[in-house]
Amino acid sequence: MPIDSRRLADLAAHDDFLQRHNGPRQDDVAAMLATLDVESLPALIERTVPADIRLGRELELDPPRSEAEALDYLKRLARQNRVFKSYIGQGYHGTHLPAVIQRNVLENPGWYTAYTPYQPEISQGRLEGLLNYQQMVMDLTGMELANASLLDEATAAAEAMALCHRGNKKAKSEVFFIADDVLPQTLDVVRTRAAYFGFELVVAPAEQLADTDAFGALLQYPGESGQVRDLAPLLTAARERGIMTCVAADIMSLVLLKEPGALGADIVIGTTQRFGVPMGYGGPHAAFFATTDKLKRSIPGRIIGVSRDSRGGQALRMAMQTREQHIRREKATSNICTAQALLANIAGFYAVYHGAEGLTTIAGRIHRLTTLLALGLKEKGVSLAHDTWFDTLRLTGVDAGKLHGRALTHEINLRYFDNGDVGVTLDETTTAHDLDVLFDVLLGEEHGLSISALDARAVDEGASGIPAACRRESDFLTHPTFQRYRSETEMLRYLKRLENKDLSLAHAMIPLGSCTMKLNATSEMIPITWPEFANIHPFVPRDQVAGYKQMIDELAAFLVEVTGYDHISMQPNSGAQGEYAGLVAIRRYQAAIGEGHRDVCLIPSSAHGTNPASAAMVGLKVVVVECDRHGNIDIEDLRAKAEQHSEALSSIMITYPSTHGVFEAGVREVCEIVHAHGGQVYVDGANMNAQVGLSRPGDFGGDVSHLNLHKTFCIPHGGGGPGMGPIGVKAHLAPFVTNHVVTPIEGVNADCGAVSAAAFGSASILPISWAYIKMMGARGLREATELAILNANYIAKRLGEHYPVLYKGENGTVAHECIIDIRPLKAASGISEEDIAKRLMDYGFHAPTMSFPVPGTLMIEPTESESRYEIDRFCDAMIAIRQEIRRVEAGDWPADDNPLVNAPHTQADLMDDGWERPYSRELGAFPSQAVKAAKYWPAVNRVDNVFGDRQLVCSCPSIDEYRD
Amino acid sequence: MPIDSRRLADLAAHDDFLQRHNGPRQDDVAAMLATLDVESLPALIERTVPADIRLGRELELDPPRSEAEALDYLKRLARQNRVFKSYIGQGYHGTHLPAVIQRNVLENPGWYTAYTPYQPEISQGRLEGLLNYQQMVMDLTGMELANASLLDEATAAAEAMALCHRGNKKAKSEVFFIADDVLPQTLDVVRTRAAYFGFELVVAPAEQLADTDAFGALLQYPGESGQVRDLAPLLTAARERGIMTCVAADIMSLVLLKEPGALGADIVIGTTQRFGVPMGYGGPHAAFFATTDKLKRSIPGRIIGVSRDSRGGQALRMAMQTREQHIRREKATSNICTAQALLANIAGFYAVYHGAEGLTTIAGRIHRLTTLLALGLKEKGVSLAHDTWFDTLRLTGVDAGKLHGRALTHEINLRYFDNGDVGVTLDETTTAHDLDVLFDVLLGEEHGLSISALDARAVDEGASGIPAACRRESDFLTHPTFQRYRSETEMLRYLKRLENKDLSLAHAMIPLGSCTMKLNATSEMIPITWPEFANIHPFVPRDQVAGYKQMIDELAAFLVEVTGYDHISMQPNSGAQGEYAGLVAIRRYQAAIGEGHRDVCLIPSSAHGTNPASAAMVGLKVVVVECDRHGNIDIEDLRAKAEQHSEALSSIMITYPSTHGVFEAGVREVCEIVHAHGGQVYVDGANMNAQVGLSRPGDFGGDVSHLNLHKTFCIPHGGGGPGMGPIGVKAHLAPFVTNHVVTPIEGVNADCGAVSAAAFGSASILPISWAYIKMMGARGLREATELAILNANYIAKRLGEHYPVLYKGENGTVAHECIIDIRPLKAASGISEEDIAKRLMDYGFHAPTMSFPVPGTLMIEPTESESRYEIDRFCDAMIAIRQEIRRVEAGDWPADDNPLVNAPHTQADLMDDGWERPYSRELGAFPSQAVKAAKYWPAVNRVDNVFGDRQLVCSCPSIDEYRD
Repeated sequence: MPIDSRRLADLAAHDDFLQRHNGPRQDDVAAMLATLDVESLPALIERTVPADIRLGRELELDPPRSEAEALDYLKRLARQNRVFKSYIGQGYHGTHLPAVIQRNVLENPGWYTAYTPYQPEISQGRLEGLLNYQQMVMDLTGMELANASLLDEATAAAEAMALCHRGNKKAKSEVFFIADDVLPQTLDVVRTRAAYFGFELVVAPAEQLADTDAFGALLQYPGESGQVRDLAPLLTAARERGIMTCVAADIMSLVLLKEPGALGADIVIGTTQRFGVPMGYGGPHAAFFATTDKLKRSIPGRIIGVSRDSRGGQALRMAMQTREQHIRREKATSNICTAQALLANIAGFYAVYHGAEGLTTIAGRIHRLTTLLALGLKEKGVSLAHDTWFDTLRLTGVDAGKLHGRALTHEINLRYFDNGDVGVTLDETTTAHDLDVLFDVLLGEEHGLSISALDARAVDEGASGIPAACRRESDFLTHPTFQRYRSETEMLRYLKRLENKDLSLAHAMIPLGSCTMKLNATSEMIPITWPEFANIHPFVPRDQVAGYKQMIDELAAFLVEVTGYDHISMQPNSGAQGEYAGLVAIRRYQAAIGEGHRDVCLIPSSAHGTNPASAAMVGLKVVVVECDRHGNIDIEDLRAKAEQHSEALSSIMITYPSTHGVFEAGVREVCEIVHAHGGQVYVDGANMNAQVGLSRPGDFGGDVSHLNLHKTFCIPHGGGGPGMGPIGVKAHLAPFVTNHVVTPIEGVNADCGAVSAAAFGSASILPISWAYIKMMGARGLREATELAILNANYIAKRLGEHYPVLYKGENGTVAHECIIDIRPLKAASGISEEDIAKRLMDYGFHAPTMSFPVPGTLMIEPTESESRYEIDRFCDAMIAIRQEIRRVEAGDWPADDNPLVNAPHTQADLMDDGWERPYSRELGAFPSQAVKAAKYWPAVNRVDNVFGDRQLVCSCPSIDEYRD
Repeated sequence: MPIDSRRLADLAAHDDFLQRHNGPRQDDVAAMLATLDVESLPALIERTVPADIRLGRELELDPPRSEAEALDYLKRLARQNRVFKSYIGQGYHGTHLPAVIQRNVLENPGWYTAYTPYQPEISQGRLEGLLNYQQMVMDLTGMELANASLLDEATAAAEAMALCHRGNKKAKSEVFFIADDVLPQTLDVVRTRAAYFGFELVVAPAEQLADTDAFGALLQYPGESGQVRDLAPLLTAARERGIMTCVAADIMSLVLLKEPGALGADIVIGTTQRFGVPMGYGGPHAAFFATTDKLKRSIPGRIIGVSRDSRGGQALRMAMQTREQHIRREKATSNICTAQALLANIAGFYAVYHGAEGLTTIAGRIHRLTTLLALGLKEKGVSLAHDTWFDTLRLTGVDAGKLHGRALTHEINLRYFDNGDVGVTLDETTTAHDLDVLFDVLLGEEHGLSISALDARAVDEGASGIPAACRRESDFLTHPTFQRYRSETEMLRYLKRLENKDLSLAHAMIPLGSCTMKLNATSEMIPITWPEFANIHPFVPRDQVAGYKQMIDELAAFLVEVTGYDHISMQPNSGAQGEYAGLVAIRRYQAAIGEGHRDVCLIPSSAHGTNPASAAMVGLKVVVVECDRHGNIDIEDLRAKAEQHSEALSSIMITYPSTHGVFEAGVREVCEIVHAHGGQVYVDGANMNAQVGLSRPGDFGGDVSHLNLHKTFCIPHGGGGPGMGPIGVKAHLAPFVTNHVVTPIEGVNADCGAVSAAAFGSASILPISWAYIKMMGARGLREATELAILNANYIAKRLGEHYPVLYKGENGTVAHECIIDIRPLKAASGISEEDIAKRLMDYGFHAPTMSFPVPGTLMIEPTESESRYEIDRFCDAMIAIRQEIRRVEAGDWPADDNPLVNAPHTQADLMDDGWERPYSRELGAFPSQAVKAAKYWPAVNRVDNVFGDRQLVCSCPSIDEYRD
């Protein structure tokens, strides 16, 4: 290979990352274009994206940076954050993420690149992790049922309010009672939600609950300023008055405190952040949600349950999915799609690793140190607001200014109440040495207290901040899973065993349509565990988070340019939250201009179920707009319905390109029609990966969009969360996006309540999207979009010869995904889309999206990150499966005994000496050369969903049945 | 669970880590002691460790620190290192470790906890990685054969010298020629080695090679100050004179330079550090070693070769192991045990990820920037020592003092020659901006040069520092493996596929006797990739490595206390190197006191083969001391031989506890006998894991020991390296340990040459051992040892009822490992220890050590980190295997068709519809409940070693045969 100066790259080499992010190499692109019979990539785009919405220029972004440069830059930003020791509390606490969990879960693509476990046979690892999590929540709360996590404590409280209303049909009142010692950010979010449900909130001292008429009530345990009170009398009184109760509890305190289930709560919520999940300037963390058994059919969120597989073995899967928004649409219990699976798994593993004993040690130590702090302060004459505590003290009558100054000197954050009181909350990371420093800060250095003397006194006096009536008496985490993995070696092996049960992007393409399972690059992931991003409390003073601010501002500026909007709100911490926040902004805006009466939302029939569910949550009436036979919005029907509802028209929610995987040519017209009737246009950003660098919703008529940063902008799916759903809005909506009560956001109206517990949602994962955009640059982002479209069209072409492709654009191309229709095949052969999905597992693949948006179809989205090799491997598998279906059609194989209906094939099938199927073991389990070279094994046979829903078990099964 | 103050741990909680490191819980210990019928752990120790060597007190170490505390402390130390940009060169270069490789290989226990691939069926992943590495080295050097890495470039050079001597039988001369532009640290190490081989070194300008009589010669390419010269005429001349030649080449330069194989070299060596492996203050990195085909039978180190398995499929394994020291003992070609497998894999993956094109871009950019630097300097009148270059310039006639000052201001390290010249070496991390800064430093800020103007000029002039005759003309990395994994997604999947082929500690116990496969805790591993440890050149000024110095000093102090020696030398970067360095110290000491004639080394017959091989390398004559029937050193034989060789007695090398896994009662006497005859006692530290906290070699008579930090002190084995083998010595030997020519070490005689390229060996992995000791503390270390002994005795007890345990101590106990004798079973059934080893794979285990130290046996070492659960699982498997053997004995199964001889069973076996074996598939592949729950699959069937050695193929096989 002679040295050729043309082959020596540019001195800068800033575009290396582009070559790593994208799958197809240059010669692959040429070959794929040839297959499509299209002369060039620009020609393909021209055919695919309507001319009237094309951007026609490159995005204006900084030039791309190499991975090393981007990380250097980000490290400099990170260093502008100041990592103080936090005693702020308020629902966020320092914690030690066990290193073995950090490295092997949080930093491991085997865990973080997996999708929501819709295909349970290839998800048993994280399903078991989530079942552990549910068991842990049930044990600690004393409740009969727990879900697999919600977004944050505040939204969990809002969901609890909604559940109280749904669950308490007898109540006449529309009042929801909130104790005045509930966390302020929780109140903020509940207030937003209540407004559109039409509930009246009564915020009052907890004691007044006994005298209130309400359908439900929310209490905090311990109270936000630390008080531990016996809630049993209040909860009993509430029950007697027909009030359903929700207790927001601190998970660590429950190790020592009497469990709310035993006190009589109907619902218990909270955050599991302090179980090993870094504070991360607000998130992501997993909120827990636990209820009594009788609420099981209306609990929001994902629930993992135990069922059985086709061999009769135990198998886990998501239970009762029929409650969820993608089935029930505007009648769903909530618009929730995402759990915080990765974080819930981490919290669950934290409990597995520590066990009851370890947690008791940790919680005991926190409480003991708090008790010593209280004793010392009292000895020195400081008044405390309460004479009970778990980990939090509220100091009254102190010189807050002086304390504040000393705290800053020691790089310590305390909580400063408006009335001059000072709050101190200890956590797992607090040491005796820290306590010494705290005394210096709170009392001045001459305090003369000795920790060991205080400790001796505490032991003598049997001192405790927990009243006798509030002490926990029941066991918890008694299941063997919480006892067997206490050494790091055992824990490591457990984590690896579970990891190896699951199919993730580390194994194969996950061609889930509308999910955009693209590369989550390591360089993007590295910063999120840097302490300067991870160990920051969301309520620290602004001058400690200059690095975060700049990173978030830069990311917002990138997204403004990418979307064509004027402003980005970074608060919503999921796509569904983004929809909700966007609609809230529309409603607030319309109210502000005197059009608050507008309450109709047009939604095309092709919409994702989350759209109508979100619309319902802001009090909008959903009017469905039909699609024509090409899958496009029926413009005439739209025009008619807009006309019909003109006076009441609030908005339309469209997805672009459509959920049918097509760039609809009429999108500008759609927007114009709605605008003409005074409505606002919500453009769902789920399919933004087909637009970046080519077109912008803000240009063609959108007023607001949410962006799924966990799709288009590389935040990994984490096996079912976290996500981030910031919204872009036009200038007129900007003042009406969500604000935050504790840390107000500039430029947003002060009275605009929040939708998430933290001002910037899941701030700690924003560096992922920042890095992606920074490393790709304008050309890179555009090329990625073009390749995503090329890959999808290549698949449509190759598979189109074997399966009908349902929808195409005007020029016969698809956008970034394509839908193949299985209904005709099913009619002919009895083989369903589900059989194909399961059979793909035998070929080592995750199934495409099943039956969305059209029942009986498969929707395939390859993304730009998949190589031609992998795409061909997938197409080959699909084509081979088509041949298999033909053999069923031809009667070669019985309809009820063939490799499709028996799929997936497991090791248990293979070792069965009684194999009497009409095909070989080899054809069953090793149908391609690729799987012979590297086989991924589904852990269980096909799972029986109905069985599990009929006999709901959402706790860890007995070890005898379950393992080994 | 009521709150009980006794259950609340101590406020400090510093001993948490102990609970994580050790496997057995408290109740397990009680149960295991009951099985042994021993009342307590101290009682077991009392029975096991001879009273006259017991320490009788706790080690004096700092109190233990929690994981978080230890990491905080280490982070503070790390911050005391100053990470300057390095232009020092001299064999160490800045590099970008691709993030996907860092996270998924270097930071992944699936890769770093594996052992040397002695069992190829469960090691195909790293074997393929190493084969890629060999292919890369062969391609870049243009040689026909490459090994799987050596320790560092300097020791590779020393090995090359030895190979020249072995390989050049015709040469009469004992002279080895070394060009005077060889790296100084290489010369230093070669000098040490030559002294004991009795070679004369001639160091002279390369041109003089043509006029020298020598058996071999070493040239540097490019020369150490950057010159690129055409070596072809010199190499031709040497060949004509019967001189074998070794070229030490820079791997990155070979991308652009004519490959030494094409120039006529017999051997090519160098380091692959700059292929993605951080400098790490000196190591670990993988050195490469490539030769012509005709040297294949005498090449040192591990070689991976292609063979076939019992189904005829392709399978990789280590080739030609019969050359190695554990077989050939003092007749071995070298004492090398360890390769740098983990680092070689990283370098190989770096090449896979970049491919020829990417490497050409990188090397091209380095060279282009160097050319611009040269042009700019010349334009400004600076003289360069050479008019050729790849990446290094030597500036002459400059004001070094002034440059030095400016360099420090810019946090830049240059190379400062003794004569006032200044060296500048660029690397992959150098950017155009860096070049700007370099001009500021080298010329002052007023230089007025413009990079782009220089670049334009360079293009115009076709400027290059590489003479036409030296330009590479051949292709390299043409194998598909180097082309297929260019996107991060494809690379990630490739790495995961390979990882999943291998059995590591993340899967199961690896009970290899004498290998101490204990937990490599995540917290121990985290610091090694911190930039403050990773990105430091070994030759930086001392004031930039205050953190390293303190960490190393503290670690040395810990090890002094643990061993009872007076001084620790941290230089040897493997156990074998430690042995060699220890013996060198003895010989130097004896020479210094006028006893240089002493040249007999007594070695018990039970010794590891490395002992005699090391002794031979320092010119000692090995005299074997017999063992008695209990496996102990025969004291009378020892006495007789010491007497016989009294005048010539240099030393004895013993292992303690012995390689038979027993604490020999007579060890003090052994030492006394040798001392009485004027000899020194070398105590091999391989089995130190049985002693820590209980006894100390420095107390019972040792003069010197090496410590395998990669066994007892938690450095992971990396799949076959890295290791670290520091030596402890008594005060009289301390001045005679190895020094370093570039960075002299305090307290060591200046004329004591080095054994490793860097002063502190593989410095960057020392934090692992530091953290282990810091987190365990004195009690923790002792308890770990006690549990290691308990675990071994528990196994001996459980297995002793089924297999004869070969050796026990005086009171019927074993030390930390035990040997079971398979010879009687083999005689009765034909089933060999190898069959058992392979059958264990079906049960999900790595085999114990086979046939060492006694042929026909298995040696089992559980370590303290294995839980009772895992140990029972292992014992159950061994007992089940014993039952299987009985069925063969009983004739139930034919001797040539049973689950043992057919083991391991693979997926290929299982899918075979023609299964006609006398046992079921289930019994074959799923013989236990545990493997049914989580099966680890051997990737290939039993490997045919002989076939591969007969037809040696050490390059990547054609993709058609090899993959898919």
